[in-house]
Amino acid sequence: MTTLAASQIGTRPGTTRVGIVGGGQLARMTAQAAVSLDMSVRVLCRDDSDSATIAHHVEFGEPDDPAALHRLADHCDVITLDHELVDTALLASLIERGVSVYPRPETLAVAIDKLALAKALREAGVPVPERIELNNKASVQDAVDILGPNLVLKTSRGGYDGRGVWFPDNLGKAEAIVEELVGQGSIVFAEALIPEPFEIAVMVVRGRDGATEVYPPVRTFQADGICVGVEAPASLSDEQTHAVERTARRTAEILDVVGVLAVEMIENDGVFTVSEVACRPHNSAHHTIDSSVTSQFENHLRAVAGLPLGSTRLVSGAGMANLLGADPAIDPRERLDQALAIEPEANVHLYMKEPRAGRKLGHVTVLDPDPAMARVRAAKVASALGGSEV
Amino acid sequence: MTTLAASQIGTRPGTTRVGIVGGGQLARMTAQAAVSLDMSVRVLCRDDSDSATIAHHVEFGEPDDPAALHRLADHCDVITLDHELVDTALLASLIERGVSVYPRPETLAVAIDKLALAKALREAGVPVPERIELNNKASVQDAVDILGPNLVLKTSRGGYDGRGVWFPDNLGKAEAIVEELVGQGSIVFAEALIPEPFEIAVMVVRGRDGATEVYPPVRTFQADGICVGVEAPASLSDEQTHAVERTARRTAEILDVVGVLAVEMIENDGVFTVSEVACRPHNSAHHTIDSSVTSQFENHLRAVAGLPLGSTRLVSGAGMANLLGADPAIDPRERLDQALAIEPEANVHLYMKEPRAGRKLGHVTVLDPDPAMARVRAAKVASALGGSEV
Repeated sequence: MTTLAASQIGTRPGTTRVGIVGGGQLARMTAQAAVSLDMSVRVLCRDDSDSATIAHHVEFGEPDDPAALHRLADHCDVITLDHELVDTALLASLIERGVSVYPRPETLAVAIDKLALAKALREAGVPVPERIELNNKASVQDAVDILGPNLVLKTSRGGYDGRGVWFPDNLGKAEAIVEELVGQGSIVFAEALIPEPFEIAVMVVRGRDGATEVYPPVRTFQADGICVGVEAPASLSDEQTHAVERTARRTAEILDVVGVLAVEMIENDGVFTVSEVACRPHNSAHHTIDSSVTSQFENHLRAVAGLPLGSTRLVSGAGMANLLGADPAIDPRERLDQALAIEPEANVHLYMKEPRAGRKLGHVTVLDPDPAMARVRAAKVASALGGSEV
Repeated sequence: MTTLAASQIGTRPGTTRVGIVGGGQLARMTAQAAVSLDMSVRVLCRDDSDSATIAHHVEFGEPDDPAALHRLADHCDVITLDHELVDTALLASLIERGVSVYPRPETLAVAIDKLALAKALREAGVPVPERIELNNKASVQDAVDILGPNLVLKTSRGGYDGRGVWFPDNLGKAEAIVEELVGQGSIVFAEALIPEPFEIAVMVVRGRDGATEVYPPVRTFQADGICVGVEAPASLSDEQTHAVERTARRTAEILDVVGVLAVEMIENDGVFTVSEVACRPHNSAHHTIDSSVTSQFENHLRAVAGLPLGSTRLVSGAGMANLLGADPAIDPRERLDQALAIEPEANVHLYMKEPRAGRKLGHVTVLDPDPAMARVRAAKVASALGGSEV
């Protein structure tokens, strides 16, 4: 008898075979969710340190390597994504060979481009922040004339977790940033700075048949552009809730999403505008694992596999705190003993990632009728696990 | 690039390595739960058709093969069990080499022997049903004299899911059964038959340090001795709840349990007596995955790994229905589409098992403030998945 490979064990007939490009924590939690419905998940990981190597089936390769993607597709009926850093033309080539790809490459192309997204939504009547493209140093003054003196600069593509965003405190600095970015070939735009933004996120799931379900809006909290916590549900009036849910639904429809779509919104003079979207499971909905009838991960799987969607009902108020690495010498797994002792209600989720400052190593959810209190309780546990104080 | 084995990927330092003997659905759901705390789980499976081959690490071998168990122990800090069909002396030999084993072999020895269990509990003042050992055909009449004419016959060991239990409808049949069983070397006893029993189960979790938490009592429903459904919480008076929780706690203490312990009780003239126990995750607590702050699976892992226990709070009323195979030609995975469509609130758990009449292929949980309604809703989904009508 020898140790056999779990990933070499055959997939039985009747199982929907889902491939995931990218082996991060989103793929990890999707693979974990897939066990319940007995869906076969195969993850394309970079190497054995990837978070999602816990999946039943693992394939190794780079997400931009056509051979690796086709090898993944050899064993899959549907391909979906852990991250957006995948070439849309490469995804289209998988569709040509008969594999389904959700989100569709066309959806992804718009979702990852903030200017294209704003244009598509604005044309469809969905509220978006005013965005002015900056083609050169001189155009910064034009943006100031329209948006006022306090600008945020963003690259249209590639920004996440605080990357691709600049907060220049004077015109000269703004011009210098624009000059450098444009010189590098980046597409850059300006928005008016909102000093203390009220930010929410609405998670939508949309089936292959267009059926759409919306999770209750949550309030998100960021530090340096990185999500540090979530309160579910967000404290909104019925009217506001109705408006943002409608916006989120409409956004999913415009983008022709299949799977989950996180719609991030920011309050702008009383109106919630769509600042960005992610057509994959999203940090703002991690709480759904513990708080909701169906988690975002299971609903994403159901949607891409063509199954009926599950209820998005929140069973309890919840607070989520991210566990962001601080000291690389502190491994949260070695702190479980202390951290779990301070909060018996903590739902801890660790991602099997090497500790590194600023890295998302896990998250903690606490269920409590008071979401603000829940978030405070969750944050205490994240801190006890060695997370950075934010 | 080749497909590498997920099970060959190294376990990182800081992770508690838990080995599970047996690859059934209990090991499957424990492995699934282990992902959240980033605990490494290695399961000893019989072959690649085993339910728990989705675990990150899989070892193949028979549970009664010393070499297989020692191979499992080579990679583990703690060994625990998916089923009780493991030789206690073999488990003791693992402890001798320095591996922790929970439940302890001494606990297991009592838990799997209904007469030994009743004796231990009775001596400690815990209410148990009257059990009369039957050494020969003639002793049946003695039992009738004490217990009345309607008897249940049980073997002291090896009975589960309706096996090892007989309901003779007259003295002659009872005598014939006893004669045969005693002839085979079985230890047999009689209990008074309770015609329409009110049955409950209380799940307890006990840490290495003796810390104990109790899940709210649930009502269980059986058909032909197999659990078909659960309502959580059971509809009991505060006084009853308090009494049965105390009984369950005391039972865990008497048996010196580490890990979870399911205490099955039956109402007997107004008193809940302990009919049997299982020192492993149990069907009656599957609902905790979806209904409770901490599932029985995570709490079992926490306990055996020496971590603080999680809250056993029920977040919502729940009903659970088992999916018992009916027609071997019907694969529940091929019925997901129909079944999920009728109940968006269903939490379906499939075990990756070949359909076979009477086999536990999965379970369905529905959260609803009314546990009886929840069970009805769950049963409809189980039926739509091809489960037998009970």
